[in-house]
Amino acid sequence: MTQIYNRVALIGLGLIASSMFWGMKRAGLAGEVTGFARSEDTRKRAREIGLCDVVCDSATDAVKDADLVVLCVPVGVMGAVAAEIAPHLKQGAVITDVGSVKAAVIRDVMPHLPDHACFIPGHPLAGTEHSGPDAGFAELYDNRWCLLISDCCENPAEIDRLTKFWEGLGANVEQMDAEHHDLVLGVTSHAPHLIAYTMVGVADDLRRVTDSEVIKYSAAGFRDFTRIAASDPTMWRDVFLNNKEATLEILGRFTEELFALQRAIRTGDGDMLHDYFTRTRAIRRGIIEAGQDTDAPDFGRGGKPVEKD
Amino acid sequence: MTQIYNRVALIGLGLIASSMFWGMKRAGLAGEVTGFARSEDTRKRAREIGLCDVVCDSATDAVKDADLVVLCVPVGVMGAVAAEIAPHLKQGAVITDVGSVKAAVIRDVMPHLPDHACFIPGHPLAGTEHSGPDAGFAELYDNRWCLLISDCCENPAEIDRLTKFWEGLGANVEQMDAEHHDLVLGVTSHAPHLIAYTMVGVADDLRRVTDSEVIKYSAAGFRDFTRIAASDPTMWRDVFLNNKEATLEILGRFTEELFALQRAIRTGDGDMLHDYFTRTRAIRRGIIEAGQDTDAPDFGRGGKPVEKD
Ligand SMILES: NC(=O)c1ccc[n+]([C@@H]2O[C@H](COP(=O)([O-])OP(=O)(O)OC[C@H]3O[C@@H](n4cnc5c(N)ncnc54)[C@H](OP(=O)(O)O)[C@@H]3O)[C@@H](O)[C@H]2O)c1
Ligand SMILES: NC(=O)c1ccc[n+]([C@@H]2O[C@H](COP(=O)([O-])OP(=O)(O)OC[C@H]3O[C@@H](n4cnc5c(N)ncnc54)[C@H](OP(=O)(O)O)[C@@H]3O)[C@@H](O)[C@H]2O)c1
Repeated sequence: MTQIYNRVALIGLGLIASSMFWGMKRAGLAGEVTGFARSEDTRKRAREIGLCDVVCDSATDAVKDADLVVLCVPVGVMGAVAAEIAPHLKQGAVITDVGSVKAAVIRDVMPHLPDHACFIPGHPLAGTEHSGPDAGFAELYDNRWCLLISDCCENPAEIDRLTKFWEGLGANVEQMDAEHHDLVLGVTSHAPHLIAYTMVGVADDLRRVTDSEVIKYSAAGFRDFTRIAASDPTMWRDVFLNNKEATLEILGRFTEELFALQRAIRTGDGDMLHDYFTRTRAIRRGIIEAGQDTDAPDFGRGGKPVEKD
Repeated sequence: MTQIYNRVALIGLGLIASSMFWGMKRAGLAGEVTGFARSEDTRKRAREIGLCDVVCDSATDAVKDADLVVLCVPVGVMGAVAAEIAPHLKQGAVITDVGSVKAAVIRDVMPHLPDHACFIPGHPLAGTEHSGPDAGFAELYDNRWCLLISDCCENPAEIDRLTKFWEGLGANVEQMDAEHHDLVLGVTSHAPHLIAYTMVGVADDLRRVTDSEVIKYSAAGFRDFTRIAASDPTMWRDVFLNNKEATLEILGRFTEELFALQRAIRTGDGDMLHDYFTRTRAIRRGIIEAGQDTDAPDFGRGGKPVEKD
C-alpha cells in the first residue's frame, strides 16, 4: 500500500478507467479518485457500483485539485476533453492518457495544455472486447505492458512517478516514441482488428445465403474473429482514423501476401503453403516465450471471468 | 457405458484421433480400439501413453476385424490410406473420416472401397492449435457439432449407429451435404485461418524492421491470430488445396470488403466504419446465443489445459 498520487481524476469511465480504479484500490495507489463520464447513465451506474470515490457531473469538477488526470476516452475526443479541462488543472498537474494511438493524441492534446502542466502520453497494452463501467477488473494490467511516451514532459521525476503508478497497477512499463508506437501497434493490434471486422462482415453477407449456419457452426478461427470484431465501434473507428498511415501501409502489405497465398492455392503450390505455415507457427513460439501469452485455454487473459453480452 | 462398436480402428493418431480414443474410453463406446500412425515415433509415443488398446505397425493390421474404421489423417492422404486398407476391411465395415473438407475426401476415398463396406464421411467441429498423439483429451467433442454426410451410405441403421457413437463422445450430430459443408466451413474456418496465417506472415516481415517488438508487445488481436496461425501446416495445406473453390470465392469477397474499409479509413469516413463495426458486434451476440462460444475467458474451449509448445 504505497500511495503515489494524492488525487487522481479519471475522465471517461469505461473498461480501461474502471480497471485502473479497481487496480488503484487493490494497491492503495491514490488518496482519492474522482471520475467523470459523458452520459448521465454511466455516471449513475458508476455511483451504484462504487466506481470512483466521487463521481462528478463535469470534467472540470473532476480534475479540480487532481495531481494526476487520466484521459480514458476514445482517441477522437481526447483533444476536446483536453481543451475543456485545461483551464481547471491544478498547478503542476500531470496529464496522461490511455489512448491506443499516440501521435494523433499528442497532436490534439498538447496545444491545449498550460505550461505548468506535464503531459505524459501512455498506452496500457491490455483490454478485452467488453466496454463500459461494468467491464473493468483490478487484474487487467497484471503483467501486461504499459508504454509511455516521455518526450512531451520535461520533468523526469514525474515520468518516474507515473512509471511507479503503472507498476503499482501490475504493468511493466517501457518508453517508446509516438511514431514507433503507432507502427508497432498497427501491426500487432490495429490491422488485425480491421481484418477480423472484415471477415465477420463477409460472413454476415453470406449468412443470408447459408441461413444462419455460419453462426450455428461457427468454428475455431471464426469464433476468435467474432470476439475481436465485437470490440467497441467508437473506440475502433477513432483508432483507424487516427492511425491511418500505419494501418493502411500494413494492410497494403497484407493484401500483397494474401494474393501470393491465393495464387498458391489456385495453382496448387502445396510447398509454398506448407513453408509459409511452418514459418508462422514459429512466431507463436516466440510470443509464448516472450510471456505475452500462455498456452492455457484462457490465452493468458486470466483475471475475472466477465459474464455479459 | 454403452458399447456401440465391438472393434474400432483409428488410422492416424493425432489430436483428433487421440481425443476420440480418450472419449471412447470415458463413455465405454468400443470393445477394443486399435490404432496406426505413419511414423515409428508416433506409434512409440502412443504405446507409452496408452493411446489405443493395441498400436499396430501397419494400417492393414489395424483395420483387421474392425467394425468401424476412422480415417484421422490429413485430407490429402485420405485416398491413399483408403486404397491401402480397402482389401483388408471386415465384411460390412463402416468407414468414416474426420477430414475438414468433405467433397474432395469423398472423391478420393469412395472409388477404393469395396461394395460391402459403408462410407459415412464426417467432420467434428472441434480442435485446438495443437497436434500429435499427446494433444488429445476426452472433452474435446463435448457439446460441439459433428457433421455427417449421409449420401454415400445406403444403410440408415449404420448412420444411426455412427450418430450414437458421436453423441457418446459428447457431440451434437447433424447431416449436411458435402458441397454445402465445404462452403460453410470455408467461411467459418478455412478463410479465417488463411487470413490469420497471412497477418502473422506480414508481422514476421515487419519484425525485421521493428526488432522483435512485434512479438514483445503482441497485443490482443494479433495474439489470437498467432494462435490460429500455429495450427498444423500439413493439415492446413491439405485443407486449402482440397477446398480451393469455396476458399478462393470467400477470399475474393473478403478482399472487396477490405478495400471498402481501407477506402473509408483513407477518406476519413467515420460513419461507414462505425456502422460496419456495429453490425459485426451483433454477430458475436448471435454466436454466444447459439451456444458456440461463451463469454468466459477461456472462450468455451473448456477441457483440459494443454501445456506444451
Ligand atoms: N478496450 C481496449 O481494449 C483498450 C486497450 C487499451 C487502450 N484503450 C483506449 O482506452 C480508451 C478508453 O477505452 P475503453 O475501452 O475504456 O472505452 P469504453 O469502455 O467505451 O469507455 C469510454 C468512456 O469514455 C467516455 N466518453 C466518450 N466520449 C466522451 C466525451 N466526449 N467526453 C467524456 N467522456 C466521454 C464514455 O462515456 P459514456 O459511457 O457516458 O459514453 C465512457 O465512459 C480509448 O482511447 C481506447 O483507445 C482501449
Ligand atoms: N486439428 C483440428 O483442429 C481439426 C479439427 C477437425 C478436423 N480435423 C481433421 O482431422 C484430421 C487429423 O487432424 P489432426 O489435427 O488430428 O492432425 P495431427 O494431430 O497432425 O495428426 C495426424 C495424424 O495422421 C498421421 N498421418 C499423416 N500422414 C499419414 C499417412 N500418409 N499415413 C498414415 N498416417 C498418416 C500422422 O502420423 P505421424 O504422427 O506419424 O506423422 C498423425 O498421427 C485432418 O484431416 C484434419 O483436417 C482437424
